[in-house]
Amino acid sequence: MPAMEGRLISIEGPDGAGKSTLALGLRNELAARGIEVILTREPGDGPVGPQIRQVLLEGADIDQWTEVFLFLADRRQHVEGLIRPALEKGKWVVCDRYLDSTIVYQGYGRDLDVGLLRKLNKIATSGLMPDRTLLIDMPVEKALARIGVADLFGDGGAKRNRHDRLDREPVEFHRRVRDGFLAEARLDPARFAVLDGDQEPAKVLEQAIASLTAS
Amino acid sequence: MPAMEGRLISIEGPDGAGKSTLALGLRNELAARGIEVILTREPGDGPVGPQIRQVLLEGADIDQWTEVFLFLADRRQHVEGLIRPALEKGKWVVCDRYLDSTIVYQGYGRDLDVGLLRKLNKIATSGLMPDRTLLIDMPVEKALARIGVADLFGDGGAKRNRHDRLDREPVEFHRRVRDGFLAEARLDPARFAVLDGDQEPAKVLEQAIASLTAS
Repeated sequence: MPAMEGRLISIEGPDGAGKSTLALGLRNELAARGIEVILTREPGDGPVGPQIRQVLLEGADIDQWTEVFLFLADRRQHVEGLIRPALEKGKWVVCDRYLDSTIVYQGYGRDLDVGLLRKLNKIATSGLMPDRTLLIDMPVEKALARIGVADLFGDGGAKRNRHDRLDREPVEFHRRVRDGFLAEARLDPARFAVLDGDQEPAKVLEQAIASLTAS
Repeated sequence: MPAMEGRLISIEGPDGAGKSTLALGLRNELAARGIEVILTREPGDGPVGPQIRQVLLEGADIDQWTEVFLFLADRRQHVEGLIRPALEKGKWVVCDRYLDSTIVYQGYGRDLDVGLLRKLNKIATSGLMPDRTLLIDMPVEKALARIGVADLFGDGGAKRNRHDRLDREPVEFHRRVRDGFLAEARLDPARFAVLDGDQEPAKVLEQAIASLTAS
């Protein structure tokens, strides 16, 4: 792990998998090794991100392609305004969701054309791929239970309203998402590390660090 | 002009050309002929439009592709949420700026890949083209003078700050935009009607009505 060379690490997986916990743990572990890490997320916190986040989380009846274009706008700004400049300064960037989320949620999940989404991602990022993608995999039911989507367990989904639009999708959607992430990981095993999310956070972090030092 | 068949009419041209005046005049003339007209504009007033408008008009350092994706998000929502439903009910829709503005401002104006922009427009609109596009053409200097961008005339651009980002572009940008609109009109003469914007609004309206009744 040469400290002077910027690297882009994306963390993917469902809500509830522990992505932000892993991101924080990674930053601490890498900082202890003298590596400066920037934590970020999508939708981002740049000039476009907060407004897009609001539309996406609250907007009723957002068309699926509208959603894609909003994510791409945010990603573009995020890449050019934050990620690339940080990498060029030799920093490591750990990004909570990146381009694979578009492929998986909008492509596999909502059945939009995956090939087209790949092209759009390429435009939005000018081809900036993660050096490593940490996919936190776990059973759909466990991830949903963690974020309090409990109607699977017979309470009629009483807690659902506090959640965003993705969380309100049917279970079948979340299954397609999980399968999609795993399919993407199989397509690019050199980039993806699949971590078992159904274990203690310290163990997930340990697997993540191992996958980074192995590369 | 069968009244029961929906038609999509876009109005294009620079700021200051009199697009909204023409739109209002068209609505009145068509209403007098018993045709129900919906006036709309891009960026739109749907759930996404106002926020996008705010980012586009006020956002500092918006990347060019970010801008494209935001316009596409707005267009998609506009088409699926408003334009297509109105056309299906037999209404006429008069839209102040539509997909040609993206080709011309971002493609010709900012030098992004025009072929790619056409593909993205096709995705965003599901191929919904205007039945007729009214291009109000006028000399760049006159259009800029109308919106108060006066530094061309030696006052140092004192009035500029109240204008949006497009208005602050250099004159060469606006020349590329004018030439771009005219080039697009030549590519599709069956759809475009080029109106002389350097005359009284009543005359522009008359030309517009003539071009609609001729088709």
